[in-house]
Amino acid sequence: LRILISTDNHLGVWEKDETRRDDSFRTFEEVLQLAVEKRVDTVLLGGDLFHENKPSRSTLVKAIQLLSKYCLNDRPIRFRILSDQSVNFVSGRVNFENPNLNIGLPVFTIHGNHDDPAGQDSLSAVDILSQTGLVNYFGKHVRGGAARITLSPVLIEKGSTRLCLYGLGNIRDERLGRSFQTPGCVQWQRPASTPGYPSDCWINMFVLHQNRVQHTAFAKACVREEHLPPFLDLVVWGHEHECRQAGGWVFGFGRYIVQPGSSVATALSEGESRPKHALLLEVKGTNFRLQKFRLRTVRPFEFESVALRDVQPPLKPEDTEEVTRFLTAKVGATEVHQRRYRRDGGNPDSAPLLPLIRLRVDYTGFSTVNSQRLGQRFVGKVANPHDMLQWTKAPARSRRDEEGA
Amino acid sequence: LRILISTDNHLGVWEKDETRRDDSFRTFEEVLQLAVEKRVDTVLLGGDLFHENKPSRSTLVKAIQLLSKYCLNDRPIRFRILSDQSVNFVSGRVNFENPNLNIGLPVFTIHGNHDDPAGQDSLSAVDILSQTGLVNYFGKHVRGGAARITLSPVLIEKGSTRLCLYGLGNIRDERLGRSFQTPGCVQWQRPASTPGYPSDCWINMFVLHQNRVQHTAFAKACVREEHLPPFLDLVVWGHEHECRQAGGWVFGFGRYIVQPGSSVATALSEGESRPKHALLLEVKGTNFRLQKFRLRTVRPFEFESVALRDVQPPLKPEDTEEVTRFLTAKVGATEVHQRRYRRDGGNPDSAPLLPLIRLRVDYTGFSTVNSQRLGQRFVGKVANPHDMLQWTKAPARSRRDEEGA
Ligand SMILES: [Mn+2]
Ligand SMILES: [Mn+2]
Ligand SMILES: [Mn+2]
Ligand SMILES: [Mn+2]
Repeated sequence: LRILISTDNHLGVWEKDETRRDDSFRTFEEVLQLAVEKRVDTVLLGGDLFHENKPSRSTLVKAIQLLSKYCLNDRPIRFRILSDQSVNFVSGRVNFENPNLNIGLPVFTIHGNHDDPAGQDSLSAVDILSQTGLVNYFGKHVRGGAARITLSPVLIEKGSTRLCLYGLGNIRDERLGRSFQTPGCVQWQRPASTPGYPSDCWINMFVLHQNRVQHTAFAKACVREEHLPPFLDLVVWGHEHECRQAGGWVFGFGRYIVQPGSSVATALSEGESRPKHALLLEVKGTNFRLQKFRLRTVRPFEFESVALRDVQPPLKPEDTEEVTRFLTAKVGATEVHQRRYRRDGGNPDSAPLLPLIRLRVDYTGFSTVNSQRLGQRFVGKVANPHDMLQWTKAPARSRRDEEGA
Repeated sequence: LRILISTDNHLGVWEKDETRRDDSFRTFEEVLQLAVEKRVDTVLLGGDLFHENKPSRSTLVKAIQLLSKYCLNDRPIRFRILSDQSVNFVSGRVNFENPNLNIGLPVFTIHGNHDDPAGQDSLSAVDILSQTGLVNYFGKHVRGGAARITLSPVLIEKGSTRLCLYGLGNIRDERLGRSFQTPGCVQWQRPASTPGYPSDCWINMFVLHQNRVQHTAFAKACVREEHLPPFLDLVVWGHEHECRQAGGWVFGFGRYIVQPGSSVATALSEGESRPKHALLLEVKGTNFRLQKFRLRTVRPFEFESVALRDVQPPLKPEDTEEVTRFLTAKVGATEVHQRRYRRDGGNPDSAPLLPLIRLRVDYTGFSTVNSQRLGQRFVGKVANPHDMLQWTKAPARSRRDEEGA
């Protein structure tokens, strides 16, 4: 059983930016192409497929276009669903069993916090796609009611491989944290042990879309890794945009948590500047392995930090011109480096896209300079000439600035 | 060739009104059921399928749900398209030739002024449906450029019946009027006369969505009936919400203009209070006939006018209580009449829906009374208790108050 895993595709992000408006679509298409190339059985998305729960018409049209292009075809489906589809899926039925649609590449998705159900009818753009039959939307829990959450897995069988796939679309951290901390409040339904399907025949996988808090970082209620039950073999953690612990061979001993990261940078943060990947999960019997594939259509993004007070030779705080010259040179060097890198084949397949540059400037003891004027020199050379500089007075913050990703 | 014609379905209108929120969907479903029942080859919609060009998620989900339910099935398609589909259709292809969709009931539609292409990419919800393959969107002209308009018909053949179908989605009246008044500016492409397809073998039909101005009513530029070329046999006029000239047998001599009217009342005007219909067009060779079918799921709507100064015995302008009693009795009588009518089987198949009541009150010489207080007595008896009264001082206006329909 081969599954391509991607998350946080944020279709429509930057759609009002002339340079970046196609970024999310271009890379989502690369993900779908990769799925075809790697001959996967299915694609699993970890939420935030859309950047907004009510995206523009243009974003919806493009999403439907891409999914139609890659998901509708004659390829046979080589796995089947054993669980109750009316419980699993918002549409009540897996799309490849709909006799009116010719699904060749089934996509499964949960919702994120960006495309969460909202409004009187608790709907998001994912519901629209679900209604078209282009995605299988699962892990949508009914709002309101008690904090009780029942997780009913999608049971997938291909030959002798059995995958028990739990999904949980985004819930407010505090609320979900409380549920997990209350004994018996989160019900993990396990497949019944029946002849031919002993309870240990399943690979147990869970996909969720929540903040992933360091053990000691916050006191507030949220889901912690230690809340997750020990029988889970593999956890796919959406929402966090940086790709982490995502590659290599892993045999199914103990729990393994992967964080695929987003396919497009939605913030100019350090974590987002790291390479973007999609993951190939191969499950055979009760073993699985993960491979990561770097996404090549991602816009280059260089992130640097500098503290003005530490520059050598020292800058004079009162000489704004000197500070401006220094920062211009610093950005310029990054831009030249990016240009050389692209030209000299650092990532030979990638499109010649203007890079994103973000310089985090600790200006403690200094004043800010006019970023607009500085940016003017980089129009046509940088994708974001007017927001390259980020001013900070605090000591360089931790990398965790992707809240709400 | 059998075509069900409906227009101005305004999906999503009144969606924030608890009583009326389902009205547009209920009757659109009736239209689709009628199409199935009458075993038509196709459905033709005249625009304003959606009440807004960016409808709510809920409206989009329901629209996709209804169209999927009725359009996706195994019924064979018994006609074919002879014209260049890449010119005709926004999607570049008629949906029933898409090998990945199982279309049994093809729907053709133009856009109206409510679901007109807007924004940078000139898109509306109709484009979203077009992208899903659930409708065939035609008559979408490219914006901007000169006032020149080229009308390329969809050529439909079924046996020896040939239909040349022109469509033109809504354009601002003034702009379209200018185009029509400028010689050579509107190009009607005629099918070439070829062996087996002489130029007189076609029934020429045109569907448009514009204000339909009385000959003498306005001086402003707009499309007038006399602008339409003489070779047209049948014109379907969308946008006007009152059903007019829509029934009976007509043999294809000269031009015939039908105005199907909306399937839901979007305004509490006199025209909208008249019965709603869908039309069945049957074309055989170069003859056609039209039949109208009253829509039974439409919410009852009673419209009345009264001039306070003409009431007998006369009302005293200074006695507000007396005027209130008079108006309450008048509304009450209408409500009772409606209730009896529904109970006594005036329209036995219709759902027991609370009626809409609109009383247009000419209060010349009088003051208005508190409509809220009056309405309070009709909560639970009338669908619109709080806007039953419309105050007017002008002499009773003409029926043409559906501008922007
Ligand atoms: Mn997120
Ligand atoms: Mn995200
Ligand atoms: Mn209209
Ligand atoms: Mn209308």
